[in-house]
Amino acid sequence: MSGKINVGLIGAGRIGRLHAEHLAFRIPEANLVAVSDIILTTAQKCGAEFGIPTAAQDHRVIMENPDIEAVIICSSTDTHSRMIEEAAGAGKHIFCEKPIDFNLARIDRALAAVEKAGVKLQIGFNRRFDPNFRRVRELVAAGKIGEPHILRITSRDPAPPPIEYIKVSGGIFLDMTIHDFDMARYLISSEVEEVYVAAGVMVDPAIGEAGDVDTAIITLRFENGVIGTIDNSRRAVYGYDQRVEVFGSGGMVTVSNKTPDSAVVNDGQGVHGPLPLYFFIERYVDSYIAEMKAFIECVQQDRTPPVTGVDGRIPVVMGYAARKSYEENRPVRLGEVDTA
Amino acid sequence: MSGKINVGLIGAGRIGRLHAEHLAFRIPEANLVAVSDIILTTAQKCGAEFGIPTAAQDHRVIMENPDIEAVIICSSTDTHSRMIEEAAGAGKHIFCEKPIDFNLARIDRALAAVEKAGVKLQIGFNRRFDPNFRRVRELVAAGKIGEPHILRITSRDPAPPPIEYIKVSGGIFLDMTIHDFDMARYLISSEVEEVYVAAGVMVDPAIGEAGDVDTAIITLRFENGVIGTIDNSRRAVYGYDQRVEVFGSGGMVTVSNKTPDSAVVNDGQGVHGPLPLYFFIERYVDSYIAEMKAFIECVQQDRTPPVTGVDGRIPVVMGYAARKSYEENRPVRLGEVDTA
Amino acid sequence: MSGKINVGLIGAGRIGRLHAEHLAFRIPEANLVAVSDIILTTAQKCGAEFGIPTAAQDHRVIMENPDIEAVIICSSTDTHSRMIEEAAGAGKHIFCEKPIDFNLARIDRALAAVEKAGVKLQIGFNRRFDPNFRRVRELVAAGKIGEPHILRITSRDPAPPPIEYIKVSGGIFLDMTIHDFDMARYLISSEVEEVYVAAGVMVDPAIGEAGDVDTAIITLRFENGVIGTIDNSRRAVYGYDQRVEVFGSGGMVTVSNKTPDSAVVNDGQGVHGPLPLYFFIERYVDSYIAEMKAFIECVQQDRTPPVTGVDGRIPVVMGYAARKSYEENRPVRLGEVDTA
Amino acid sequence: MSGKINVGLIGAGRIGRLHAEHLAFRIPEANLVAVSDIILTTAQKCGAEFGIPTAAQDHRVIMENPDIEAVIICSSTDTHSRMIEEAAGAGKHIFCEKPIDFNLARIDRALAAVEKAGVKLQIGFNRRFDPNFRRVRELVAAGKIGEPHILRITSRDPAPPPIEYIKVSGGIFLDMTIHDFDMARYLISSEVEEVYVAAGVMVDPAIGEAGDVDTAIITLRFENGVIGTIDNSRRAVYGYDQRVEVFGSGGMVTVSNKTPDSAVVNDGQGVHGPLPLYFFIERYVDSYIAEMKAFIECVQQDRTPPVTGVDGRIPVVMGYAARKSYEENRPVRLGEVDTA
Repeated sequence: MSGKINVGLIGAGRIGRLHAEHLAFRIPEANLVAVSDIILTTAQKCGAEFGIPTAAQDHRVIMENPDIEAVIICSSTDTHSRMIEEAAGAGKHIFCEKPIDFNLARIDRALAAVEKAGVKLQIGFNRRFDPNFRRVRELVAAGKIGEPHILRITSRDPAPPPIEYIKVSGGIFLDMTIHDFDMARYLISSEVEEVYVAAGVMVDPAIGEAGDVDTAIITLRFENGVIGTIDNSRRAVYGYDQRVEVFGSGGMVTVSNKTPDSAVVNDGQGVHGPLPLYFFIERYVDSYIAEMKAFIECVQQDRTPPVTGVDGRIPVVMGYAARKSYEENRPVRLGEVDTA
Repeated sequence: MSGKINVGLIGAGRIGRLHAEHLAFRIPEANLVAVSDIILTTAQKCGAEFGIPTAAQDHRVIMENPDIEAVIICSSTDTHSRMIEEAAGAGKHIFCEKPIDFNLARIDRALAAVEKAGVKLQIGFNRRFDPNFRRVRELVAAGKIGEPHILRITSRDPAPPPIEYIKVSGGIFLDMTIHDFDMARYLISSEVEEVYVAAGVMVDPAIGEAGDVDTAIITLRFENGVIGTIDNSRRAVYGYDQRVEVFGSGGMVTVSNKTPDSAVVNDGQGVHGPLPLYFFIERYVDSYIAEMKAFIECVQQDRTPPVTGVDGRIPVVMGYAARKSYEENRPVRLGEVDTA
Repeated sequence: MSGKINVGLIGAGRIGRLHAEHLAFRIPEANLVAVSDIILTTAQKCGAEFGIPTAAQDHRVIMENPDIEAVIICSSTDTHSRMIEEAAGAGKHIFCEKPIDFNLARIDRALAAVEKAGVKLQIGFNRRFDPNFRRVRELVAAGKIGEPHILRITSRDPAPPPIEYIKVSGGIFLDMTIHDFDMARYLISSEVEEVYVAAGVMVDPAIGEAGDVDTAIITLRFENGVIGTIDNSRRAVYGYDQRVEVFGSGGMVTVSNKTPDSAVVNDGQGVHGPLPLYFFIERYVDSYIAEMKAFIECVQQDRTPPVTGVDGRIPVVMGYAARKSYEENRPVRLGEVDTA
Repeated sequence: MSGKINVGLIGAGRIGRLHAEHLAFRIPEANLVAVSDIILTTAQKCGAEFGIPTAAQDHRVIMENPDIEAVIICSSTDTHSRMIEEAAGAGKHIFCEKPIDFNLARIDRALAAVEKAGVKLQIGFNRRFDPNFRRVRELVAAGKIGEPHILRITSRDPAPPPIEYIKVSGGIFLDMTIHDFDMARYLISSEVEEVYVAAGVMVDPAIGEAGDVDTAIITLRFENGVIGTIDNSRRAVYGYDQRVEVFGSGGMVTVSNKTPDSAVVNDGQGVHGPLPLYFFIERYVDSYIAEMKAFIECVQQDRTPPVTGVDGRIPVVMGYAARKSYEENRPVRLGEVDTA
């Protein structure tokens, strides 16, 4: 049995503020006692808004506070692995936004630090906590569609991020598809062993000039024989498109997009329904709450988090394999990715 | 066992031509040997188009032809009961378009003639042969929704007929709702004992000036306790709206409209699907074929037709009860309709 | 401009606790400072759970606290009108659960007290704040379906309440249909002038023995000429069924039920989708938050609440008219209900 | 202007009989005067059933009949190219079932004979005439989804053919995917230049022992930059699964499966809808009629058929490229297929 968990938040940008709100108002088991941000006023503003007693510029205020049992890492990606190591060194449990890092060696060092410290680490693949995808996984795992044969994931953003972001994003496969790679593993409960990518620049030439692509189809081969596709676009004018389908020997399960309401208008021109929820904040708000609740409960009850460090590492390997496949126009086995 | 049935068609207007086409091309068991129409050129044109050997102005050419075993009555409504009597007198089996007549005494005389002659009579309530409604009836009869409690019928035309037609139509309840009255009995397998109508003129004031209404909600009470509503409009701008729902102790069954295709477009404005099929010819073409096939088979195999003379009579009584309810703004029992 | 609103909660049963949770965690503009319940431990438990400083048995602790600006009345129905009068006398703004009372004279006295005191009163017709119904109203008001002609409301509960509750509920029309009466007025923006009821006992004979019905179809005539139906059942085995449809000169708008997820399974037997959310707590949780938020904002910004005392009174009159219609099997005008 | 077209049918197996029925009863512009089949009784039975004056074992009875203007080739695949050459030599217009041949040199010789003779040739890719797919093509061509970016085709059969058939089928890519290859070209209006296949044996090991696969994902790259996937299975337990989706800069269009009716049952377990139509005969009956109608009209009106010999040839090349891609596990350009 256990009491409330004292939590510190590192990084108060968009996603950090989202977690702060949930920790403050939606998760009674958590006690958000400190927030830090490299921009002090950002930390202070967040602290004021959500009633957080301490707001600091230096994250060490959190790391060195013996009352804090868990940290939420929402700082910029290039600091994630270092923050994990520091937190592990301080004996704190860790929730870290994805990706852990773009460098596999740094990921491995961070995971080793976590293991050595014996603390818990959960990675922010929030979509696993969405009721739709969770239900698909349950149905597949329960054998409702027999043995799975084919996986189809459609994952399209409503609009590309700014070009400046694209340039430091690690590329579409490490920035956007990484979520779908996690989803693929989650739904099929098997590891991917080979990927093949067909991709292009169709949305914005500036994305191509930045060395990236904006539209892609990724073929997956799983160890258990399942084959799958993911299709990505940086720009679906109708909004955030997040669908999956698993087909198997006993049938098929599909999920559709969420809409703000179900109002359908019939008029002289056609039958008109509502667009999907616009983007990830709207679409996945409940899954952000659920993942944080799950993390806090794992800390309270001393259980292994549902998205581990290894779950954070593998999609990065998949992202590198996808990039290599695109560059060399051939299927690439995950084992080919240099993980030394 | 039996051979092809020789058939004569009386009346070659829109619905007559539809039946002619089906008898000629879609129902190999029938042999359409003669057509008549009070406008000779109409009969001749129909005959030429569908390869009918004999085309005449006088329907007696059909009645007096001893080779003709069955007649299809598609002449104007005011001639239906007389044609039935003549055909019965000539010993021919009869398919007659709805309604048999607006006058209950004439209906009864026609039905008596049919009974006396021992010929078969089927009334053209084609919707019973639609796969959607047939399926609903089967599911209800099979107990898939338990004991039925509530029936809902939505029946809206895409556009009102010409005012000249409205004036001789017998009014919306005898012209349009009559199909829904038949559907109600068909789906619930019980008789209606009382109706209540709320109605108004909302589509076109000229319909009101002609003494009719164009929008109505009819409440039904069935002998077995089920309660139901029908809602009618003479003008649904999105096309022919034909839906039913039956709710019961074990669940609910619903059917939706048919569309020409299932193409759904997502664009920046919304999600856009196809409109329902425009009107009864498009919507119910298969049911017209099926009803005629059923009639020919009943003649061939000496079975009772699936829509009897009584099935043609009762909806007329319901239409009069509905009109009375509208005029007096009170629930009216079917027994109140003067059937002497 | 204004600061946080100090709020007191009277009655900490199921619905009271729901509001307490929302006021405590979801509505930062409110400050829930006291709770009372005639069972002291119930008040204390609620206070402990949601961090409410004061918990008392006697509601006068709230009424007499000069720091409390607004009260939330969630005590039993028979106390509502008295609580409203007391709160108005104490100069406090009032949110009161529906219905205000079953006695129209007491309602009128309560509304008069509110008017005299110049305080705000909002009635808890939460469904108005549901995104589906709100959207339908907006689309109708914006003329997207032209002039409305026909309204259809389906409102079916998953299971009847205990017979002991049925006996004191005021009957289905005042207990259950009252929400649909409010919805009808809300969607059509016109007053109902006449109702007709067809109803029966189909779910449970014990409900009939208690003098009530469990299944009903209510026909509505609005002042603006629109006609409508509501169909109710106390027991839909597939869950809470809450749909509306408005049909008009320019088209139709419909909404469908909400489901916990959108997972659809195709197997050898059929295509299987999820059931609707089970009951009102699951289905309408967001609307409960939204209605309370709206109330607090109206107090803060000195605006008229979106559901007024008159909005609370009229559905009670409609309920009485419906009961009279059922008893006398005839359409009843609202003016016939004795409101003296 | 023109009169009826005299037609001869070669091959009276399942698909031949289907065309015979349509030519006899559904296409008044055609006059089916002769049928041949290498099994004489098969030809005679077909002739008797559909009223065809001449029934023969030797197809030359058709080829040498100067009154016959057009032939319908439904004999076994290995005879198609020879029949085309003979018919072209006899100056007859040709409708030929797919595929023309598995041998590209023989295809080329047949197409050369057609060109030399100046006769019309239409290949039986019937799905182009399905209202769903036709509508998608129209919407894409009309720019309703902007520039196309991604194509997705799902094409799954309800059950595999007998192993004996599999062995002579040419393999899944030439037997089953060939239809999807045609659909891909039809919807995108651009040629495919490269394919990549991930496939396996998941349905039945006997299919693998016969040297074939039963489950596949094919990635397509089009000349115009579009990328696409096709997923195939030989066994979808829920029935024939035929869906497409085209995504572009301005939106997305999708079509869903056809069902025998739209009856949806809600019960205590879930919401249950009807399965898709079982297989191609049920699903595509209207498209078979439409393609034959189109062919007859092209002959009558001296227009180029909508599915040409080249349209018949290219999917065979795609099938060989797909097989090579599967065998070598790498993307294969169509130019690599040896067409000498």
